[in-house]
Amino acid sequence: MAKRIPTRLYLSEDEIPTTWYNLRADMKNKPDPILHPGTLQSASAADLEAVFCKEPVKQELDDTTRLIPIPEGLREFYRAYRPAPLIRAYFLEKALGTPAEIYYKHEGTNTSGSHKLNSAAAQAYYAKEEGLASLTTETGAGQWGSAMAMACAYYGLGLTVYMVKVSSEQKPYRKALIETYGAKLIPSPSNTTEAGRKILAKDPNTGGSLGCAISEAVETSIKTDKCRYVLGSVLNHVVLHQSIIGMEAKAALDKYGVKPDIVIGCAGGGSNLGGLIAPFMAEKIAGKSKARFIAVEPASCPSFTRGRYAYDFGDTAMTTPLLRMYTLGNGFIPSSNHAGGLRYHGMNPILSRLYKDGLLEARSAVQTDVFDAAVQFAKIEGILPAPESSHAIRVAIDEALECKRTGEKKTILFGLTGTGYFDMTAYQAYNNKTMTDYIPTDEDLARGFATIPDIPQNKMQ
Amino acid sequence: MAKRIPTRLYLSEDEIPTTWYNLRADMKNKPDPILHPGTLQSASAADLEAVFCKEPVKQELDDTTRLIPIPEGLREFYRAYRPAPLIRAYFLEKALGTPAEIYYKHEGTNTSGSHKLNSAAAQAYYAKEEGLASLTTETGAGQWGSAMAMACAYYGLGLTVYMVKVSSEQKPYRKALIETYGAKLIPSPSNTTEAGRKILAKDPNTGGSLGCAISEAVETSIKTDKCRYVLGSVLNHVVLHQSIIGMEAKAALDKYGVKPDIVIGCAGGGSNLGGLIAPFMAEKIAGKSKARFIAVEPASCPSFTRGRYAYDFGDTAMTTPLLRMYTLGNGFIPSSNHAGGLRYHGMNPILSRLYKDGLLEARSAVQTDVFDAAVQFAKIEGILPAPESSHAIRVAIDEALECKRTGEKKTILFGLTGTGYFDMTAYQAYNNKTMTDYIPTDEDLARGFATIPDIPQNKMQ
Repeated sequence: MAKRIPTRLYLSEDEIPTTWYNLRADMKNKPDPILHPGTLQSASAADLEAVFCKEPVKQELDDTTRLIPIPEGLREFYRAYRPAPLIRAYFLEKALGTPAEIYYKHEGTNTSGSHKLNSAAAQAYYAKEEGLASLTTETGAGQWGSAMAMACAYYGLGLTVYMVKVSSEQKPYRKALIETYGAKLIPSPSNTTEAGRKILAKDPNTGGSLGCAISEAVETSIKTDKCRYVLGSVLNHVVLHQSIIGMEAKAALDKYGVKPDIVIGCAGGGSNLGGLIAPFMAEKIAGKSKARFIAVEPASCPSFTRGRYAYDFGDTAMTTPLLRMYTLGNGFIPSSNHAGGLRYHGMNPILSRLYKDGLLEARSAVQTDVFDAAVQFAKIEGILPAPESSHAIRVAIDEALECKRTGEKKTILFGLTGTGYFDMTAYQAYNNKTMTDYIPTDEDLARGFATIPDIPQNKMQ
Repeated sequence: MAKRIPTRLYLSEDEIPTTWYNLRADMKNKPDPILHPGTLQSASAADLEAVFCKEPVKQELDDTTRLIPIPEGLREFYRAYRPAPLIRAYFLEKALGTPAEIYYKHEGTNTSGSHKLNSAAAQAYYAKEEGLASLTTETGAGQWGSAMAMACAYYGLGLTVYMVKVSSEQKPYRKALIETYGAKLIPSPSNTTEAGRKILAKDPNTGGSLGCAISEAVETSIKTDKCRYVLGSVLNHVVLHQSIIGMEAKAALDKYGVKPDIVIGCAGGGSNLGGLIAPFMAEKIAGKSKARFIAVEPASCPSFTRGRYAYDFGDTAMTTPLLRMYTLGNGFIPSSNHAGGLRYHGMNPILSRLYKDGLLEARSAVQTDVFDAAVQFAKIEGILPAPESSHAIRVAIDEALECKRTGEKKTILFGLTGTGYFDMTAYQAYNNKTMTDYIPTDEDLARGFATIPDIPQNKMQ
């Protein structure tokens, strides 16, 4: 008889991967180069270093080195909360009555509550190594701000977090958590920056937006000595750092000879999904696997399923470098009724290229369907998932039920990016049946698309 | 060179203990028998079964069986969130500059956020086996209510939770979590019971108390078909279930030949501390260890350090069986400024006996000192601790600093019972410097002691 696969598959400390997986090295069609917003030429390292830390910039531009070593000073921090468990969903399989085997990689066991800490730790480590004194960033739902606050507390760096004002008011406990870790939290827009003052002058009662918070954080980092800006998703170096998720998951599955047929992850900016699929997608590209890969995005912010593949800005002030990606337009305004993250207009360039080339599928889900899956999962598996992660759960359940219908014994792996402890207002709304869905109309989308820059590169596609 | 001890010591699934450790079997002086409140005679199983489930009652009265098997149907549930990590506090040791080795058993990695799930799962399992349809309980800080809601969702049992009204208002997210798991939550006092109506008639604006919530939950269980009442601490069977904490910790330490010199735990009703120390205390009783054991309680509710060893009721309505324990009197009112749990007037009888016999030490800590330790720990070790757990952290740090002073290389083990994600208002108060301390005056204590029943057994001590 085959050895029973444990419910929780833990790697030992010395099995934690010592390198990240840079999937771009394996891609036949690489993501298009980042463009300088002024010259519209490929951005150089020097261009990017005006805003970002040096080593992450190097990683951002590196599309050839497959395995990039994780420095020992960072691995020490990783050991404090990793390996993250890979869990066999025996209970869920039984409850669904599916022949499918379901696994999920649980990244929510650290205090920040999500996978975001993997890149926050890396970026803080490199900032410290570079001799910086502080960092700035923005946060929307709050997971990234929490992760950066933890990482900066550990490495002894100052941190200023611009938190979307409406979010800082709706989530006072996220604010308290970030402040407990010693970071300075400023609701955005604020009067601490030109960008903020300009927006406040126009609309003193605005609740803010992620795009505005990014502009404020970037401005402050540039004006502050020994300070840089850090971003928690979308960029390629963030996806690289998140490849620890996929590397660990693969190492754990390999020990039991398990190969996933379907890999599922939620997608906002794309960092967790890109990290989860990296080593598995490499096998597919190499012709060693026929696995399918599914990105799940909210129907309210459908970058993949209804977006355009074009060069676009990362922020609404149109000041960042241009990335070629699936985008709804930097001016797209996601509905405020949407709970949690995944509200970004664009999508990481690596994932965008994979989707363009048919290597990655995408699906969208409406919020109430997502929370149906979240609550079902919480009751059966015992873990209260983040709203973001629940998008992946929704499709994992759908795929497992499809296996039940067809009788196929597929192996499903999905990313459980985090826990929902700081999202209880959303669960309250679901429990009270006041949660609503929103699907943008074609007119809503057209308004967003109109903000995609009209540059020569976007006419060539 | 000795093998490096990992930061996180995980047992493999097949190393999870299959039995609980019943420390009473090893005690030379056993805890005194439970008394029936009417007859003042030793309570029989039949007496207790009117309120509690059968198997837990059997365990409550068993002071001779050392190892009690954990049933397979429960071990299945334990495998979903156990083993809990035992963590070597390398970062904390370094930050303190202590020669001490510090370990902590982290019981907060499950969604209920604390060790409470260990007994909740056991009690729900036995209720289901007994053929019951539902359970009732009370919750104050909310950890126990959350744990019971998770356990009942898994085993398919109905659950009614009476939550202290002021707590349900202060912690709406705990309420949302409990309701997400399908439990019915009733702020107490309520008009659903005689006990509640009586209290509301006297004071319609009361914020409620744990004693009142217990009375309502017991009353409802008695009036409901196929229903029993469950309690999350104080009783001996709860301590028995929590011995999985100590059993796992010892199994992990034994693998590396590590023996603790000091074992520290926070103490409210005593269940986590009793569970943590069980196998280590057994070695001390057998003369195989000279370890010290320290209970840490809040200065605002000092059952051990300022209480009396006497028979007392578990509730303020004076309806429960009588336990001989350290108590401040069932009418003692803990200060409302106190954050988190550990607000119970009494202490588990096993721990009370050990303390009486000098085998267990006790210390009290004021709230702001506890939060100093909590925030220091959060920043250094990366885990945001529950206020309750932070009492143990406070004394672990104090003991480690004492080692630094004396140069002794002691091994310290403490229980990290849970996380503080649902306690952010307390952290907010600490961050804003509005947190205050409270130490009861002798007059406050005298009022509590006056409520200890005047029975013959209490005159004999």
